[in-house]
Order: sequence, then C-alpha cells, then structure tokens
Amino acid sequence: MDTTNGLEILQHNLLSEVKAFFDSAPPLKDSNEVSEKLKEFIEGFSTSQGDGRAERVVCVTSGGTTVPLEQRCVRYIDNFSSGHRGATSTEYFLKAGYAVIFLYRRGTCQPFCQSLPDDPLLEWFEPTSESNIQVREQHAKAVKRAIMKHHAAVADGRLLKLSFTTIFEYLQILKQIAMETRCLGTHAMFYLAAAVSDFYKPWKDMAEHKIQSASGPLDMQLSQVPKMLSVLRKEWAPLAFCISFKLETDSRILLEKADMALKKYKMHAVVANELSTRKEQVVVVTGNEKVSVRRDKNHPGDDVENPLINLLLERHSTYIEDSDI
Amino acid sequence: MDTTNGLEILQHNLLSEVKAFFDSAPPLKDSNEVSEKLKEFIEGFSTSQGDGRAERVVCVTSGGTTVPLEQRCVRYIDNFSSGHRGATSTEYFLKAGYAVIFLYRRGTCQPFCQSLPDDPLLEWFEPTSESNIQVREQHAKAVKRAIMKHHAAVADGRLLKLSFTTIFEYLQILKQIAMETRCLGTHAMFYLAAAVSDFYKPWKDMAEHKIQSASGPLDMQLSQVPKMLSVLRKEWAPLAFCISFKLETDSRILLEKADMALKKYKMHAVVANELSTRKEQVVVVTGNEKVSVRRDKNHPGDDVENPLINLLLERHSTYIEDSDI
Repeated sequence: MDTTNGLEILQHNLLSEVKAFFDSAPPLKDSNEVSEKLKEFIEGFSTSQGDGRAERVVCVTSGGTTVPLEQRCVRYIDNFSSGHRGATSTEYFLKAGYAVIFLYRRGTCQPFCQSLPDDPLLEWFEPTSESNIQVREQHAKAVKRAIMKHHAAVADGRLLKLSFTTIFEYLQILKQIAMETRCLGTHAMFYLAAAVSDFYKPWKDMAEHKIQSASGPLDMQLSQVPKMLSVLRKEWAPLAFCISFKLETDSRILLEKADMALKKYKMHAVVANELSTRKEQVVVVTGNEKVSVRRDKNHPGDDVENPLINLLLERHSTYIEDSDI
Repeated sequence: MDTTNGLEILQHNLLSEVKAFFDSAPPLKDSNEVSEKLKEFIEGFSTSQGDGRAERVVCVTSGGTTVPLEQRCVRYIDNFSSGHRGATSTEYFLKAGYAVIFLYRRGTCQPFCQSLPDDPLLEWFEPTSESNIQVREQHAKAVKRAIMKHHAAVADGRLLKLSFTTIFEYLQILKQIAMETRCLGTHAMFYLAAAVSDFYKPWKDMAEHKIQSASGPLDMQLSQVPKMLSVLRKEWAPLAFCISFKLETDSRILLEKADMALKKYKMHAVVANELSTRKEQVVVVTGNEKVSVRRDKNHPGDDVENPLINLLLERHSTYIEDSDI
C-alpha cells in the first residue's frame, strides 16, 4: 500500500474497523436460513431468468436498531422509528413492479398495515356471541385490505420480510442481502430508511451482567459504528443504486449534513428529512440537484412517499440506462 | 428538622430529588383524562359501596420504561421487558376476583394474549376469497379466547389499562394511581413488575437536538433515578400492600440484592428473578422467609405466575387481617 496516499489509508482504516465490528459481533442465529431465503427470492429476478434482463429488486430497511449495553441484555439504546416510512415505501415499490426485500425492526410498522392501530386484534375486533368474534364494521375494509394485499405480495414471491433487533443483526443481514443481490447489478436498489445507531458498545467491552445502580451516576463510553454506507457502496454492492436517509431535528443543519453524507458515502441520493415535518415533505439531494418533495394535500390519504418513490424510480431508470451505455 | 438525625436527612434529600425529578419532567399529556378514568374505575371498589368494605384492587406495572437522551427524541435507553410477567399475572389477579389497573408499556404483551404471535393479524389471518378473511383454523380458539376474555374484563369494569413509554410518564401515572387508590387502604396492592430504568437524563440537561456523531465516541453521563419505591411506600400509598421485583443476570448476588431492596424500600415482598430462569422459578423474599416458587412441570401450559399470585394473595389476606386488628 502506498502510505503517501491519505485516501487509501482512510479506506484501509475503515475496512479494519468494519472487520473488527463483525469479528466482535455475536453470530447471527439463523444466518443459514436467511441466506437460503435470500437465494431463493433473488433467483426469480436475476438475469438467468426470462428475457435475460434482471428485474428490479429494492432492499427497504425500516425501523430503528438497538445497541445492547450488557451481554446478557437488560438495557439497550434504541433509535426512535415507527417504521412508517419504510412500510409505506414498500407498498409503492411493489405497486411500481419492484420486488422488495423488507428488512425491518421486529414490532414496527408493516406494509399495508399503517392505517391499523398498534393492537388491531384487541382494538378492532369484538365478540359477537359466546363463541364468535368479528372485526368492527367500520374497520372491516381496512383490516381485509391489509391482510389480503400483504398476503398476496408474499404469496406472489415479490415481498421477502427479514427482521432484526440489534445493530449487529441489522448489519450482518444487510451485508448478506448486498452480497446476494450483486448478481442483479444496477437493477438492485438500496433504500436505507432504517434509523441506524451511530454509536455502539463493542461486544468484548460490554459488562457480562446487569450494570449495578448502587455505585452512583452512570458514565458510559460508546464507540462510533464504522461508516457502513461507504462499505456497502464500495465493497458489498458497487453497482446497486443507493439511497440513504438523513434525519435531523435541526432544520438549519439538515441540507448541509445530507450533502456531506452524499459525498462522503458516495450515495446516489440522500433523502433529507426533519423530524417534525417528515410526513409532509422531504428533500432529495443528489450530486446536481435538490428536489423538494411534498405530500399532495389536495388528495386526502396521499402521503409524501408517493411522489418520493416516483422520483426515485425515474432516477433509478436513468441510472440503469446510463450504466448500459 | 433535627439535623442530628441521619435518616431524616436522607429522607429529606430523597424528597428533594423526587421533587426535582417531577418538576423537570415534561408534563403528562393526558393527565386529566387519566385522572378521570382512575376515579371512575376506583369508585366501584371503595368503601362507600356495597357492604362498606373495599374490594381488592391491584396495580400491575408491566414492560420497560424508556429514557430519552434528546428532548426532540431520536435516541433513548430502553429496559428489556416483554411484559409477559405483568400480562399473565393480570389474568390470575382477575381470576382471583381482584380488579386490576394494568399500567403497561405501549406495544408490550397484553392480558389473555400471550399465546398470540407478535403480529397475529398478519401471521394468523388469511384471505378466504376475494373479499373475506378468516383466522386460520388451528389458531381460531386462541384468538377467540384472547378477544373475548380481554373484552369481558374491560366491559365488566374490572380491568383498566393505562399505557406509558418514558420513565417520566410511568412515574407520573404511578403517582396518580397511588393517590387515587389511597381510599382503598390495605385493600390496594402494588405489583411492580415493570422494568424501570435506574438512570435517566434530566430534561433540562438534555440536548435539544439530535446528538451529532461526527465528533467521535460518545461520552454520556446519566443521573440516578430517585428511589421512588421508598416514596410510593411511605408517602403516596402508606397502607397499600407493595410487591417489587428484582431482576439480575448474576444469580450469586440476586437474593442479597432482593433482601436489600426489601429493607431499603420497606416492601412487603420482593420477587427475585434471574434473567435466564425467570419463567421457571422465582423466590419471594419477605421479612421472615424466602419462598421458592416453581412452575408446575407436570401441568403443560402452567406458568410460574400461577403459584406466585396464589402465594401473594394469601400474604395480602394476612396483611389485611393483621391491619384490621
């Protein structure tokens, strides 16, 4: 390695950090099962099928990752995310003909289910007699739609759901997905809407047992999670079309941070959203434009994901065409 | 105040800490609504009704509290708890004739629903035709039982459900419950199974905006949550029968810690459980005994909560009788 090259050293350091992260992570329990499901799912969409062109497949990540603070975990740090963005976006991707790998945090929002309450079974169902239950009349349509659309997508082999809880699980599965979708080339997309922790406690530095409270205030040091977006883009899935998200609560720094992320991680687009207005509008930041995307208020029930996905589909098409030349 | 009295100083300090905690907490959004629900619920069980004796009412707390790390919260610390213990115990309390105030973490396990999967609607229901859905045959009994039993308990006015997410919400509602159940005297019980954070970030010390990751590893100082069990027992609900829980991952320190909690907070009993065996056995620690309670393995489907609640009911009866003398 040429030690006079600063960028290469940086890249080398990052790869060492990434290796250390994965080496120290607790092994994924159902790694083989995940791998088989992925292979089977992808097979139908790769170039070996049909007219010799790969179909488009998007990996949508959704919900927040947890960071355990103890090995036998009682306490953890969590990133707030309902998973609404990822679930809604999945619906639009499916509608547009994409196959979707939905990598979601257990317990968060599911595609076609956003209009349902947290606990639909207890909130919307009622006993009708001593031995029967039914969904309340006013909710029947929403419940039927959710179950039918969801089951149809899974049954058609166009929706694969994989779940995670910890940041260790999330990054290990994301890497598997990236590796398995390489065969799709530019037809693969990563739509990284999950709220991924920036900080973590390396497994080996963790207390084995529950941290005791008797010894006064808690002083906690957390390490930075290696910048996996760089690695995904450069190493794991160099041809895929990659969209990341930047969430901030301070609108003054949002676009600047999104722009930095775009350049630093070489994303194809960064979706900038502010916590308080994220359901109304986002800004799609690319190398040569900043496009503000708004929910259409004239259409009740419309959401910001509708125009957002439309815009990204167009950009993905352009990306594929440009790469084909 | 006699400043030569160490205990009084300690108590005075604790009350100042508690005041500071509540003063700095973000106000409970639906405080009035919670208060009205509680009043209405309790009314039916107080001494003013029926034969002039209060009925027994237990407040079961369940699930983990979150500790926000930012005011516009993106990140938080969470305590792991499925809420299984609280939900199952609620069923046994109802069966034994108690009225139950179920104070639970949003999204955790609900009474009568433990046998259901995380997402019963998507996992157990299926489309039967173009316009109909049904629960899969093999799960029909479990779903019907859950909905019927749950609705019956709520409809009979014997189950009041109140939810929390943050430690601020949890402690504010717990205080309200304690105040409202004072009229029940010794007939009130607190069964504090929730996993409550020992540490928190005082609201005024919190960053307003999302903590930035660019500046390297995160060094985080957290304050100790004031020991509210003491305050509940001494100030809020001095006559109620109080059970707290001690969860440890290290069995070697468990009983010692449970004993310390019993004495320090003047609980009537502490339920000691170890993370890995908590579904098989617990130890009930009181001032003069340590009773090991085990799940009956000869009865499939039996759980440790069955004998646990039986034991506590007996102890509560003795407590009421002793107080009546």
